Amino acid sequence: MKIDGRPLRPLRALPERDAIEIIDQRALPHALRFERLRSPEDVYTAIREMWLRGAPLIGAAAAYGMALGLAQDAGDAALQRVAARLQAARPTAVNLTWALARMQRHLRRLPEEARPAAAWDEADAIAEEDVAANHAIGRHGLALIERIAQARGRGVQPVRVLTHCNAGFLATVDWGTATAPIYLAHAAGIALQVWVDETRPRNQGASLTAWELAQAGVPLAVIADNAGGHLMQRGEVDIVFVGCDRVAANGDVCNKIGTYLKALAAHDNGVPFYVAMPTSTLDLATPSGPAIPIEERAARELTHVAGRDAAGRVLEVCIVPEGAAAANPAFDITPARLVSGLVTEHGVYPASAEGLRALGGARRGTAA
Amino acid sequence: MKIDGRPLRPLRALPERDAIEIIDQRALPHALRFERLRSPEDVYTAIREMWLRGAPLIGAAAAYGMALGLAQDAGDAALQRVAARLQAARPTAVNLTWALARMQRHLRRLPEEARPAAAWDEADAIAEEDVAANHAIGRHGLALIERIAQARGRGVQPVRVLTHCNAGFLATVDWGTATAPIYLAHAAGIALQVWVDETRPRNQGASLTAWELAQAGVPLAVIADNAGGHLMQRGEVDIVFVGCDRVAANGDVCNKIGTYLKALAAHDNGVPFYVAMPTSTLDLATPSGPAIPIEERAARELTHVAGRDAAGRVLEVCIVPEGAAAANPAFDITPARLVSGLVTEHGVYPASAEGLRALGGARRGTAA
Repeated sequence: MKIDGRPLRPLRALPERDAIEIIDQRALPHALRFERLRSPEDVYTAIREMWLRGAPLIGAAAAYGMALGLAQDAGDAALQRVAARLQAARPTAVNLTWALARMQRHLRRLPEEARPAAAWDEADAIAEEDVAANHAIGRHGLALIERIAQARGRGVQPVRVLTHCNAGFLATVDWGTATAPIYLAHAAGIALQVWVDETRPRNQGASLTAWELAQAGVPLAVIADNAGGHLMQRGEVDIVFVGCDRVAANGDVCNKIGTYLKALAAHDNGVPFYVAMPTSTLDLATPSGPAIPIEERAARELTHVAGRDAAGRVLEVCIVPEGAAAANPAFDITPARLVSGLVTEHGVYPASAEGLRALGGARRGTAA
Repeated sequence: MKIDGRPLRPLRALPERDAIEIIDQRALPHALRFERLRSPEDVYTAIREMWLRGAPLIGAAAAYGMALGLAQDAGDAALQRVAARLQAARPTAVNLTWALARMQRHLRRLPEEARPAAAWDEADAIAEEDVAANHAIGRHGLALIERIAQARGRGVQPVRVLTHCNAGFLATVDWGTATAPIYLAHAAGIALQVWVDETRPRNQGASLTAWELAQAGVPLAVIADNAGGHLMQRGEVDIVFVGCDRVAANGDVCNKIGTYLKALAAHDNGVPFYVAMPTSTLDLATPSGPAIPIEERAARELTHVAGRDAAGRVLEVCIVPEGAAAANPAFDITPARLVSGLVTEHGVYPASAEGLRALGGARRGTAA
């Protein structure tokens, strides 16, 4: 993606291979700030404290975290220790597990002295594969948008897309997952209107998705998470694209809290509901959604809201009565029955055990 | 209701009959402030700018607004002018229309000189009838809560109630509608846990419902609007009580934006979903939900969030990128098929044309 005319990624490995530079997403949309991470502990903190977030980006960052760790000690014990530490940063996104397992598998069979360089190469590969996968997701999702645009005649009315949270380029190494079809459709000249769920409690929609779509020139309106069902009832949503943090073997989708409610509304109103899923997010070891651990985050994320005041200073305000209790589950499960399809880098697949078996075949290059 | 040990209502007519005193709900939960309204224009502003809100309370306030207007001029033209002005304050809640029509009907047949005093008497009657209706709603709703408590054995686990927005005592003259069963159950010693939807964009749940439940000593946790579906999936919600701004002749319910999404989730998880409805909220002239006009409010309600900073000052912060567009529909329609029942002052009725016909019979005292 180009922001202000120059290419920008939320994570960039420095050529010296001694650090990665990330966009500090806590400062958005009020300021574009960068942070350099020089150790696995830096990466752990950045993931845990959500300086960066988004399942694919977390996976890539964790891979670089391992590469940073091996510079000091590339032995088997260090490998395992660093992986375990990074694994503990966030419990829900499977990409973290996936990337760390891939790094370990790749590095263990190499002699210790070859591991530091190989770790950087492998992390680079994970990052570039993410970019390629997201672009492919974009192409498959673009076909869905094109069909809607063609059905109603181009230029008459924009295709109205609803998205939840940020599965944007900020959540990945580039392009985003749910936003990739949007960016490719915009580049193809299809008129769009994107409804951006603000996505309480952390407001990733209002702060991140709104920011990146605006930077790319895509027309958008931020809406309360409460509003999507009403817009669907009024016929003002043509298609929903969301990302995912983990997809179980039966097609159940774990994604940002509130996704399930939008899926129910889409189903009730006949609006197609697609989940953009790089196959790195698929967890065949988990039979169904209810088995996925749901992260409970701090109440303060809900009770305190960050923004900029009239003078442009960024600060937090408390929106509840003093001492009020709050509960803050961060994800929910959208049952496979509510999902129109999983948009993967290999094509669009049904959200079902059969669909995911077919996807497995396509990944092995044996079948579509 | 007693707050801090003394009786408190969100609206009180002064004995001099030259003003009403209201709680300025914009200051809650950070401060308890009162405002005196001395003219219909004051009342118009208070309703329009939401110093007070809640369908039943708006109705009572409008009635007093008429009484304040007639002190200067009690002629037919003035009567109509004042009613038209107050009617324009909010478009969605039917209680406004209902209270103004009732006031006009009552006053028109009286000689001009009798109207000022009669207007105060009628406004008082509307207010007291609201209190009585809400208490009756509370008794009928209490029976639903008692059934759940008995089924699981008292004291083992609290009955977990979810509510959206504020249909609390602050939304009425007293007791609230959706909260009346909660307050009566709490008084009856039934252990409760109330999930309070924060209710974006205006946060009436986080600021008003959380405040009044805490004042009454009812255990609560504020949750993101996104979280209710997940809690229902996990079996952590036993019953939902919401209020309503208008109910159509077929039982469709117009209530705060996001109600529909919770009703879908309740239906999907077999959780009973009840709408507390004083019969003043029933609009038999509107055949079904989609015919109800939905108020679009200012984008700023969504893009700016009010709260108190670390120093205790109340201020607003902007949560979106500079210049980002936002859409802010304030209500949605919950189809009758998703509603387990309408809890009225006359009992619990099915949300259907038949159910509302039976309710009509009960109101006329001819049938139950």
